[in-house]
Amino acid sequence: MTQTTAKQSKMVGKQSVQFSNPPAIIGCASVAGQKEGEGPLGAFFDVIEEDPMFGQKTWEEAESKMLGMAVDVAIHNAGLKKSDIRYLVGGDLLGQLIATSFGIENFEIPLIGVYGACSTMGESIVVASMIIDGGFADRTLAITSSHFAGAEKQFRFPLAYGNQRPKAASWTVTGSGAVILGHEPEKDSEFAKQFSPVMIKVKGITIGKIVDYGIKDSLNMGACMAPAACETIAQNLKDFSIQPDYYDRIITGDLGMIGKDILIDLLKEKGYDISSNHMDCGIEIFDSEAQDTHAGGSGCGCSAITLTGYILQKLRKRDWNRVLFVPTGALLSTVSYNEGQSVPGIAHAVMLESC
Amino acid sequence: MTQTTAKQSKMVGKQSVQFSNPPAIIGCASVAGQKEGEGPLGAFFDVIEEDPMFGQKTWEEAESKMLGMAVDVAIHNAGLKKSDIRYLVGGDLLGQLIATSFGIENFEIPLIGVYGACSTMGESIVVASMIIDGGFADRTLAITSSHFAGAEKQFRFPLAYGNQRPKAASWTVTGSGAVILGHEPEKDSEFAKQFSPVMIKVKGITIGKIVDYGIKDSLNMGACMAPAACETIAQNLKDFSIQPDYYDRIITGDLGMIGKDILIDLLKEKGYDISSNHMDCGIEIFDSEAQDTHAGGSGCGCSAITLTGYILQKLRKRDWNRVLFVPTGALLSTVSYNEGQSVPGIAHAVMLESC
Repeated sequence: MTQTTAKQSKMVGKQSVQFSNPPAIIGCASVAGQKEGEGPLGAFFDVIEEDPMFGQKTWEEAESKMLGMAVDVAIHNAGLKKSDIRYLVGGDLLGQLIATSFGIENFEIPLIGVYGACSTMGESIVVASMIIDGGFADRTLAITSSHFAGAEKQFRFPLAYGNQRPKAASWTVTGSGAVILGHEPEKDSEFAKQFSPVMIKVKGITIGKIVDYGIKDSLNMGACMAPAACETIAQNLKDFSIQPDYYDRIITGDLGMIGKDILIDLLKEKGYDISSNHMDCGIEIFDSEAQDTHAGGSGCGCSAITLTGYILQKLRKRDWNRVLFVPTGALLSTVSYNEGQSVPGIAHAVMLESC
Repeated sequence: MTQTTAKQSKMVGKQSVQFSNPPAIIGCASVAGQKEGEGPLGAFFDVIEEDPMFGQKTWEEAESKMLGMAVDVAIHNAGLKKSDIRYLVGGDLLGQLIATSFGIENFEIPLIGVYGACSTMGESIVVASMIIDGGFADRTLAITSSHFAGAEKQFRFPLAYGNQRPKAASWTVTGSGAVILGHEPEKDSEFAKQFSPVMIKVKGITIGKIVDYGIKDSLNMGACMAPAACETIAQNLKDFSIQPDYYDRIITGDLGMIGKDILIDLLKEKGYDISSNHMDCGIEIFDSEAQDTHAGGSGCGCSAITLTGYILQKLRKRDWNRVLFVPTGALLSTVSYNEGQSVPGIAHAVMLESC
């Protein structure tokens, strides 16, 4: 892999960036719902809230509350005050990003609202990292969330219908993950105590294109998103002239069982075999048999809390040293779906390394 | 005003950035609907489309088509090919940004989807400029759009209801504006021919916070957004230690008549008088009496086409040398509104200067 100094271009290949001063993760938080807490990764989450309403009156307010909790926990864990965060980059699945805007307004942190469907944790880290490396801020916070009930209401059916879900469907994760990016962790912060002496840095990014194979089945989102994940992963490998085994894990967001198989097949056609080091957050987060989640978990929160709960711990323990984190999004709305449009996908890649 | 060299910090005050290598505008486009073409700024737009459907079957597809036209015209006008644009930063008002995603998918340009309601043109230029100044790309494209009929359907009533609109209501602009940012215009491009020897650069930015005065009237968006505009403008002046007369014009996005008065009053309370050099795109774009648009124009497209059509021409002719461009957004959805939430605002400021 080519080494870049501060004087060389940060632009790598067609779609990627290699940071000259790689931003470090200096704080993180994961807030999960009860079902996520009962899943295989439950032990890794900072907060597991048993009340799906999070003490609020509506599903949307519940999601906002959860997202605000993640911001709070991350700032506390990083040993910071809210005024130490210069910019917040975040978004969610709800129309007009209301979970984010109502969730963060009391923090009074300038906001860059982003939307990449379930790729939003990747997109927010991409933007928040560029802001740090570019010298525009010392600390940024990247956040996203999703809530099972709010997402069903937004995209599918109200829960009270009790509709049947096809086997290809995924289960939207109730969760919010936050990452604080900066130069180095605050001494004596909980984060520093837990992670020191390991530093986890964002070495580079690959910003994804929209990829549309014309698939119209919104209840098979893995199939809709796998082509975008394939393009972004292949572009990352090509841009940096590396092979899949450069990474200990290549981790997609929420392809689920069906999407995972498609991704591995599509990448094989491009000459890349990731079958031995691929992992999908959507497959890890639930026990699909015992928890009746069918193809796997999904939603912005799926990759977000798997990252902030589980993946960062694996990097801290140096079980893994290099991870390509690739959240995947399905770009649909009920309007686009009902008007007969396809469901294109997008995926953004974040290169995480233990130092 | 403090001058910054490349070695000094780009961070200015609490929320602002002063670029060390200010990105230049190297291409632009404005696509407008018929009503906008018949308004006071009609002569300035690149394309005026008489068919509100833009030849498509649905309002949403019409908006996507319009947005794609703006990308096309901007790339052509800049003397570039689509592959010359490294990253596209954009978004729109529709849930899950479907106007943008379906509008740009055929361009195959990596996408950073952003949402700031009607502040989106400010937000997309903010992000696209940081990407250039940070050295992450040579050329980025910032875009947004809105469509009157699509916005009415998304936020208010289907047009066929023929509902009455209160006097405080604004009229969503049908329009899409695109700006290409880079280092310098391509020689012999239409843009270079028209603008040379003047260069218009983004000197700095101020990223806004969400400001919520608890207003719940979604048909008086000027009142909802004015407090956010006030905070962002005051913060820009404070961060850079300048007075309002530093700018030839301070131009808000779509406050309309009511919001304009509130903004001027609120800034007076903070010790800033912008009454002589304030302009609002929403007031300029329509003849409110003759065109029955009540408080003024609104929507992401309002500030976008006023910028790319009119404001850039005024800067080119050096009628103005320094402009603070402050698009304003109202952060609501039908869900948040129907659940009794307030309508908070956000505004992002872009410092444009003729060089």
